[in-house]
Amino acid sequence: MQLFVNDKNNVVTEAIDGLICGSGGKLSRLDGYPHIKVVVRSDWDKSKVALISGGGSGHEPAHAGFVGQGMLTAAVCGDVFASPSVDAVLAAILAVTGPQGCVLIVKNYTGDRLNFGLAAERARSIGLKVSMVVVDDDIALPNIPQPRGLAGTLFVHKIAGALAAEGASLETITAVAERIIGNVKTIGLSLDTCVVPGSEKIDRIPNDCAELGLGIHGEAGIEQIDYAGVNAAVAVMVQKLAKSVDQGDLVVLLNNLGGVSSLEMSIVANEIFRSQLGERMTHVIGPACLMTSLDMKGISITVCPINAEELQYLQAPVEPWAWPGCNAISSTAIIEMPDGLTPEPPVASAHDETRALIIGCCEVLIDSERELNTLDAFSGDGDTGSTLASAARALISKVDELPLADHTQLFRALGQELSQTMGGSSGVLLAIFFAAAGDASSSGSNIANSLLAGLKRMKEIGGARLGDRSMVDALEPGLEAFAKGSDPAMPSRAGADSTAEMASARVGRATYLSAEQLRGNKDPGAEAVAKLFEYLTK
Amino acid sequence: MQLFVNDKNNVVTEAIDGLICGSGGKLSRLDGYPHIKVVVRSDWDKSKVALISGGGSGHEPAHAGFVGQGMLTAAVCGDVFASPSVDAVLAAILAVTGPQGCVLIVKNYTGDRLNFGLAAERARSIGLKVSMVVVDDDIALPNIPQPRGLAGTLFVHKIAGALAAEGASLETITAVAERIIGNVKTIGLSLDTCVVPGSEKIDRIPNDCAELGLGIHGEAGIEQIDYAGVNAAVAVMVQKLAKSVDQGDLVVLLNNLGGVSSLEMSIVANEIFRSQLGERMTHVIGPACLMTSLDMKGISITVCPINAEELQYLQAPVEPWAWPGCNAISSTAIIEMPDGLTPEPPVASAHDETRALIIGCCEVLIDSERELNTLDAFSGDGDTGSTLASAARALISKVDELPLADHTQLFRALGQELSQTMGGSSGVLLAIFFAAAGDASSSGSNIANSLLAGLKRMKEIGGARLGDRSMVDALEPGLEAFAKGSDPAMPSRAGADSTAEMASARVGRATYLSAEQLRGNKDPGAEAVAKLFEYLTK
Repeated sequence: MQLFVNDKNNVVTEAIDGLICGSGGKLSRLDGYPHIKVVVRSDWDKSKVALISGGGSGHEPAHAGFVGQGMLTAAVCGDVFASPSVDAVLAAILAVTGPQGCVLIVKNYTGDRLNFGLAAERARSIGLKVSMVVVDDDIALPNIPQPRGLAGTLFVHKIAGALAAEGASLETITAVAERIIGNVKTIGLSLDTCVVPGSEKIDRIPNDCAELGLGIHGEAGIEQIDYAGVNAAVAVMVQKLAKSVDQGDLVVLLNNLGGVSSLEMSIVANEIFRSQLGERMTHVIGPACLMTSLDMKGISITVCPINAEELQYLQAPVEPWAWPGCNAISSTAIIEMPDGLTPEPPVASAHDETRALIIGCCEVLIDSERELNTLDAFSGDGDTGSTLASAARALISKVDELPLADHTQLFRALGQELSQTMGGSSGVLLAIFFAAAGDASSSGSNIANSLLAGLKRMKEIGGARLGDRSMVDALEPGLEAFAKGSDPAMPSRAGADSTAEMASARVGRATYLSAEQLRGNKDPGAEAVAKLFEYLTK
Repeated sequence: MQLFVNDKNNVVTEAIDGLICGSGGKLSRLDGYPHIKVVVRSDWDKSKVALISGGGSGHEPAHAGFVGQGMLTAAVCGDVFASPSVDAVLAAILAVTGPQGCVLIVKNYTGDRLNFGLAAERARSIGLKVSMVVVDDDIALPNIPQPRGLAGTLFVHKIAGALAAEGASLETITAVAERIIGNVKTIGLSLDTCVVPGSEKIDRIPNDCAELGLGIHGEAGIEQIDYAGVNAAVAVMVQKLAKSVDQGDLVVLLNNLGGVSSLEMSIVANEIFRSQLGERMTHVIGPACLMTSLDMKGISITVCPINAEELQYLQAPVEPWAWPGCNAISSTAIIEMPDGLTPEPPVASAHDETRALIIGCCEVLIDSERELNTLDAFSGDGDTGSTLASAARALISKVDELPLADHTQLFRALGQELSQTMGGSSGVLLAIFFAAAGDASSSGSNIANSLLAGLKRMKEIGGARLGDRSMVDALEPGLEAFAKGSDPAMPSRAGADSTAEMASARVGRATYLSAEQLRGNKDPGAEAVAKLFEYLTK
């Protein structure tokens, strides 16, 4: 089983129940399971023209997902890819049609046409006003006698929905719907087939091919074309669309057939906007799942020439979330990069004692390169010593450019320097340590408390705590002793040594190693810190 | 190539451009491509606390899709599954942070923590107020030291977004965000792996297995479990969630990891509402793509205990369409089936002449059974004769229950009768023919014009026109002659005979046959109609 379903016979009723329960009370259904699966607006009072759509399921959110204020009044759901029965359609008509009548919005498939058509006749025979429009927007074949109804149906749902909400008459809504149907054109393309619940997947499309001109029921497209990326594929689709629409502005609808990632859909949108028809496109609906073919990894592009009034109806707000809105297409809005990204270089200042201290620390690290590399070889990739030594060498070469006489500026400059010269997570963490220390120092903290503030921030960001087998195990006891005015070297050394007995690491590469692999070997970062404190207290 | 992408190196910039161009001017980006990919609100005036999120790409609509009024101020986009650089984060901070400061909302991955963390330090060092919260909602492993940040991040985006929109302080927003982070829990499950642009798909999950406890970067879940449907899978997930949250009401967020169909997502929702935790769940966000893992065929379920104030913030309207809202969960609202679905049985009335006419017509069809079957064997499945004959036999058996003395009622009764006793499209089409004729008759048309109205409707619904090789070719000339008062038999016969020369069919099963296969054989429906007119004029 490769789908999120239970019994294939219940997929539609279970999905409808899920939709209704999570609708916040806005949707209800008729009590006709399993044969009659009709979703209706809970708040419907029959005072205006009702809009009913539907057909086989497997196209969600169409159609039940578009039931709500401003769009459909009811959706009649068949089984997956199968037309609902005449009785189901008639039940929907009877449930929602008031004195203003109802419009049936049907996609052009024989089963839907016949079953909705007969239900309409039955409803008329008991005195209801019913009109029916059939959407046939597919342009896969130039002279197909019965073009299929595809995602272009959404234009009818939305514009008719806005008209109905305004209180337009059955005749007006029907006429506008028919005008839209005459104008709207759709072409589909897929990279893979869909999986029908209860059936095996048919692997029909080779890996370097796409199917062009396909419908929404898993049927094969009219041709397989070479596929080498979105750019060429969209160009072929748009070329076909361009031939089928007259001059003038267009609204484009970009439909995800169900299995395409959101990232990819935005790339497709970008190609459409830059395509041959891009300049004529003023507004876009989507990208979104609107009229899907289950989980098909495919798309469809719909274009519709639109007048100002229709555009207003397309943009009117609606209740169903599945409708993604209709936005103006603009060129990419680019904002200048902000100032301040390149840090001000520190203003150098002299302080002999500090200078000597820094150079001395750097030399300790340079001298320990091989020893620290060996320690790291037990628990990491064996380069801690080299990483620290090369950062130390770089620091020595720049020591006279540092603001040695100003602790706040010095901490910040050290952070800046280490983030540029020291690779890996350690470089970022030490940069954070010194930057946060500078921050605390600028707020008036003394050196020891500033460094403790840096440690606190480094622990927060890095996630390491005492006992996690990291440099914190030597740094924290050392700095705490320093803040109390006692000797920091001894507690720091004890902390570093204790890491050899820590059986597991919670941070860094050593997390991937077992207790046996770690035991007896000190953490190289902690060892480096202990050596520094030993040097500083000498 | 199995993805809708072009060059794998440009997927993120192309997707961002597509998103921005279709945003209706609401989104802009910083001028830092390709390294700095930052999406910002176009209307931002820095008067309130800014919210910045981001991380690796491949999780769309997170994060750029949630930039807009009521949610994020800016999103920093890394490459696919890779953290953005310190400079990119800092550019975002500098671009949107005003005197009220900014909150960084980060998912708990080392790269993101470090890069956002260091950028925050840099921003502080130049005097900006910056706080950072780290979301770690994953419960895949009970004692994992650094739980991953998953779809629970959306709770933080939304609630912090509503607070910021209200003008709350940096301190308040940070505190509330941290309270949410302490409460929100997520577990993921997938039926298949995702495809990373530029990489081969790794088929890791057997067909009857699911991976439980997975992240959003294609990494393996903590275990593979047997998969036999949504019900059991959701039960396992919910059990883990139940252990991780205290008593009390919950909001649930249902996330599509990218490749699950909308139909399936509603089925998953239905299972969640009916699960062990269902009774405690008061509201739902989704199902929707919120925090995806490219096109992964998987889901995640997030739960969060929530207080009344937080719920208000979750439900506050926002600009970004990608946010699906937060609805109350209700039991399925079921509406009684409407009256009128079962048609009133016609009131029988006697009329000898009509009775004889109907029986005579039926006998013509019964007598022609074999001949019509033979004709149909050339172009269809060889059962037209039997279908018509069995409907005719049923009609004879019920003739005395018909309203023979009232044409309007009789037409409607014939339509009703044929829709029940005659299978296939033909049965529905004849039912529509008689029902529409009854409709016209009730409006005062005479018999001939009523039947012509029936023909018109049947053609509209069925899609067949004159010359399409169907019963219309005999019915239309016959009825038109009848309406003019001339002999209908001859033109009807000529029409039926002409179908033998029609080289292709536009409707019905014969559309699948070639000219050679069709030539010389009459359409069986047209032949039946001609025979009836010949009988009627005798």
